[in-house]
Amino acid sequence: MPDQRDASASPFRTREQREEERSAKRLALLVAAVRMFNERGFHATLLEDVAASLGVSKPTIYHYLGNKERVLLECIRLGIEQFRAAIEEARGLPGSGLDRLRHFLRAYARINMDDFGRCVIRTGVEPLSPEGAQVMRDQKRGIDAALRCFIEDGMADGSIAPSDPKILAFTLAGALNWPARWHVPGGPMSAEDIATQMVDILTAGLAPR
Amino acid sequence: MPDQRDASASPFRTREQREEERSAKRLALLVAAVRMFNERGFHATLLEDVAASLGVSKPTIYHYLGNKERVLLECIRLGIEQFRAAIEEARGLPGSGLDRLRHFLRAYARINMDDFGRCVIRTGVEPLSPEGAQVMRDQKRGIDAALRCFIEDGMADGSIAPSDPKILAFTLAGALNWPARWHVPGGPMSAEDIATQMVDILTAGLAPR
Repeated sequence: MPDQRDASASPFRTREQREEERSAKRLALLVAAVRMFNERGFHATLLEDVAASLGVSKPTIYHYLGNKERVLLECIRLGIEQFRAAIEEARGLPGSGLDRLRHFLRAYARINMDDFGRCVIRTGVEPLSPEGAQVMRDQKRGIDAALRCFIEDGMADGSIAPSDPKILAFTLAGALNWPARWHVPGGPMSAEDIATQMVDILTAGLAPR
Repeated sequence: MPDQRDASASPFRTREQREEERSAKRLALLVAAVRMFNERGFHATLLEDVAASLGVSKPTIYHYLGNKERVLLECIRLGIEQFRAAIEEARGLPGSGLDRLRHFLRAYARINMDDFGRCVIRTGVEPLSPEGAQVMRDQKRGIDAALRCFIEDGMADGSIAPSDPKILAFTLAGALNWPARWHVPGGPMSAEDIATQMVDILTAGLAPR
């Protein structure tokens, strides 16, 4: 007979437990959705299929997340949060501007190869409503601006040779966005190794000569 | 009264004239289509709208080009031809492997900012039938292989420092593919200037130290 005094054995969950469960379910739905968006594209992804992959019904997804565009925007928001955390971390580091840039670029590359970051990079504005497209553009612009700042800091402290910071930012970001399109998770090289090698290539010529 | 002996005044066109006209019409339809694909994406592009932009009917497009997927594949084929011509030209140049790589990369970047090259880069396999996707993959693979060859030649003749040629190729191509997504034709910087600056950044650190 179960011990009636053990609170954890109660069939009634506490509010904290219910909230934790709700947030775990929400995340599981988002991970299933983002993987399908990344694999099939937004148009070819059906919320029915996302639901079926977790053995739940489509109304369950609506209940937790809303319609397909809301689901996509939430996936993008989670990806953007990872980029923002990487920006904060790099900003707090000692060393030169070039050191901080390299640190940020490695994190940027790794996030691009992860589920939500991949979705941020792969999603164009085409599938979104004008409002959704604007939200995404604003969020992405913040990351571009941060990258530009790392570059300008490096030029200001002399660790990066002077050039057009805008073109340099596009060149670096472009190269590191590309793995979001070709990298297959679980392939022969880890995302960490690819990120390190790419950033070494991209930054080898940045210091003044 | 027109001179009846002047053959060019004949209301009947020669076979050559009819073929030239047909091919000019076909190209005009392809240019109108590729710009709409690049601007709106494949799904949002309607052949009716492409036809309307030239003041013709949708059956005219079907007559010259076939259905929407056939139109897209033909746009991609034209883009691939430009890349192939750039590969041939760079292969014939004197100088080191790094010199030929730089020459090819500049052409690659310029083509990526032009109508058909932009379409090659922007089109994923998602909108295509399995057969269409396979055709596109095979054609793109040829360009990747050529880029890899330029890099390996440069490593073999000592003008490029040894590293993983595959990762280097992805890094260079990725950076130079990115303008296909953000470059606006007719913007403040020419495609030529952007190509030159990006290739300078990307290749500044490639020579052995």
